[in-house]
Amino acid sequence: MDLLFLGTSSGTPTRTRNVSGLALLEDTGKGWYLIDCGEATQHQILRTPLTLHGLRAIFITHVHGDHCYGLPGLLASAGMARRLEPLEIVAPAAIESWVRATLQMSQSHLPYELVFHATESLNNWRNQQVSVKATTLSHRVPSWGYSFTETRPDPRLNTEKLDLEAIPRGPLWGELMRGNDAIFEGRSLRSEDYLLFTRSPRRIVIAGDNDDPELLRNACTNAQVLVHEATYTQPIAEAGKADFGHSTAAQVATFAEDVGIANLILTHFSARYQPVSGRALSIDDIRAEATARYNGKLFLAEDFMQLTLDKRAELLLRTEAER
Amino acid sequence: MDLLFLGTSSGTPTRTRNVSGLALLEDTGKGWYLIDCGEATQHQILRTPLTLHGLRAIFITHVHGDHCYGLPGLLASAGMARRLEPLEIVAPAAIESWVRATLQMSQSHLPYELVFHATESLNNWRNQQVSVKATTLSHRVPSWGYSFTETRPDPRLNTEKLDLEAIPRGPLWGELMRGNDAIFEGRSLRSEDYLLFTRSPRRIVIAGDNDDPELLRNACTNAQVLVHEATYTQPIAEAGKADFGHSTAAQVATFAEDVGIANLILTHFSARYQPVSGRALSIDDIRAEATARYNGKLFLAEDFMQLTLDKRAELLLRTEAER
Repeated sequence: MDLLFLGTSSGTPTRTRNVSGLALLEDTGKGWYLIDCGEATQHQILRTPLTLHGLRAIFITHVHGDHCYGLPGLLASAGMARRLEPLEIVAPAAIESWVRATLQMSQSHLPYELVFHATESLNNWRNQQVSVKATTLSHRVPSWGYSFTETRPDPRLNTEKLDLEAIPRGPLWGELMRGNDAIFEGRSLRSEDYLLFTRSPRRIVIAGDNDDPELLRNACTNAQVLVHEATYTQPIAEAGKADFGHSTAAQVATFAEDVGIANLILTHFSARYQPVSGRALSIDDIRAEATARYNGKLFLAEDFMQLTLDKRAELLLRTEAER
Repeated sequence: MDLLFLGTSSGTPTRTRNVSGLALLEDTGKGWYLIDCGEATQHQILRTPLTLHGLRAIFITHVHGDHCYGLPGLLASAGMARRLEPLEIVAPAAIESWVRATLQMSQSHLPYELVFHATESLNNWRNQQVSVKATTLSHRVPSWGYSFTETRPDPRLNTEKLDLEAIPRGPLWGELMRGNDAIFEGRSLRSEDYLLFTRSPRRIVIAGDNDDPELLRNACTNAQVLVHEATYTQPIAEAGKADFGHSTAAQVATFAEDVGIANLILTHFSARYQPVSGRALSIDDIRAEATARYNGKLFLAEDFMQLTLDKRAELLLRTEAER
């Protein structure tokens, strides 16, 4: 499972950081998931190997423009690239009506179906690769985090059980192995009942805007990675110079240390934190604040940064050359 | 008057061309006007000297997404940059309700006022620099061209007339010279009645998507520059591989030659025309088709290309160094 950051700025784009967008890639290298879709996310995608045909689903954390204004353009471009497969979108209910109204206003007719699931009533979104749950966060508007859990970590067939139930070796076994349910002599067989998993599933928690990391305690259980906003440092927040509803690097780092998660990725930085150190406010201030409170593996996201969570659940930074 | 192209691709962005956006700059170097605002126009602006504070008005040619999806993000960013001055937007009526609904959906509260003028009922939009008229074009949806005419080409005071009417020299003359109307002894004086212009006004015609250039014949009278889409070449259009509602390079060039306009800028190219010559379809095909039919000064727009229409009404390409 890879994470590829498409936008890491809060509120407004800068010359080096776009507004929010994050791709989660399947191990297969084929399918991927998009979490948030700020304006120009489709432009960022053009600079990666990702395609709009490989996109399996979109998850939107909340209605603020820097997390969703890129949706209509991305959907229209997928149509112009002749995507035909339905696209699932998990998002706050207001997003669905806005997207449909926007496409209607601009007379865009997509050649594929949009299948919306309102985050407000989401139980569990899943396909053969991942299972996704939403966690309610605290922000100026309703906001959610999404936890992505691998559904089939290195499966092998439970041949003992299959033999015991006299299910004959053959194409049926293949179907069950690939995760497909099947019918045998009028009886439905659920793939997952005949698989054994050889390791624990990987889990990545991706939070939307949030001023209370504690709300993610349950979601972080058995997770290896937390992606969380750190819009400000503590001094800016305390000086009242920050919009409310966000977390500081100190807050998130303290929580991550306490919950014992192995990897923390901070993102969604205020544009006032400049890439160059030595400036009045630098991104190094965010790093310093987090490092002082968190002993796990810390990453500060950058646009186009790609990280691999390997099967040993180790999170590794991928260099340009490895992509 | 300068033209600075922010996006020159049709429908969908490419790695080298964004979707439609064009800045028209005042001679003063302070104020500017935006014609169309496809997604990521605000991102393009970040790579120019233009600011969202200097933006005097926005003109939208039609409702298609590649011409307007960038509006909500640009307006929100202007708010975050603390713009307070009202912003005028000339656009098809459907754009106003969509922009207002989008800002409401995303709970964006702008610190400045939006003043919309529906293109459908536009008579003449003007300020002290330019006067703008709309021309109805032919496309799959209602589409317009906008003609920008300089309002006060190098004015000097008509002192003879002022003396004749016994209007005393002093601050009042200054007001009239600066283009402001004034009151003198209970009588209103219109600035333009006391100014003499020392040369003809410059005029630039900027067309939206359009399959019938002939509709611009009147607008092109006394204009020095026509900016028009040339989405396809003739062979692609004839092979039926083109969306309908657009012009070919041949069509526009033939019209421009016939109407006798001195400068023609083609833009809004289908992504199939690649920058590299020798490819199956190259941007050189567009150039060749136009050159064969038009003897004036021809430009093929590129993102960040800047052209100056100087006071002698000559259109000159500005190099990077001159900006």
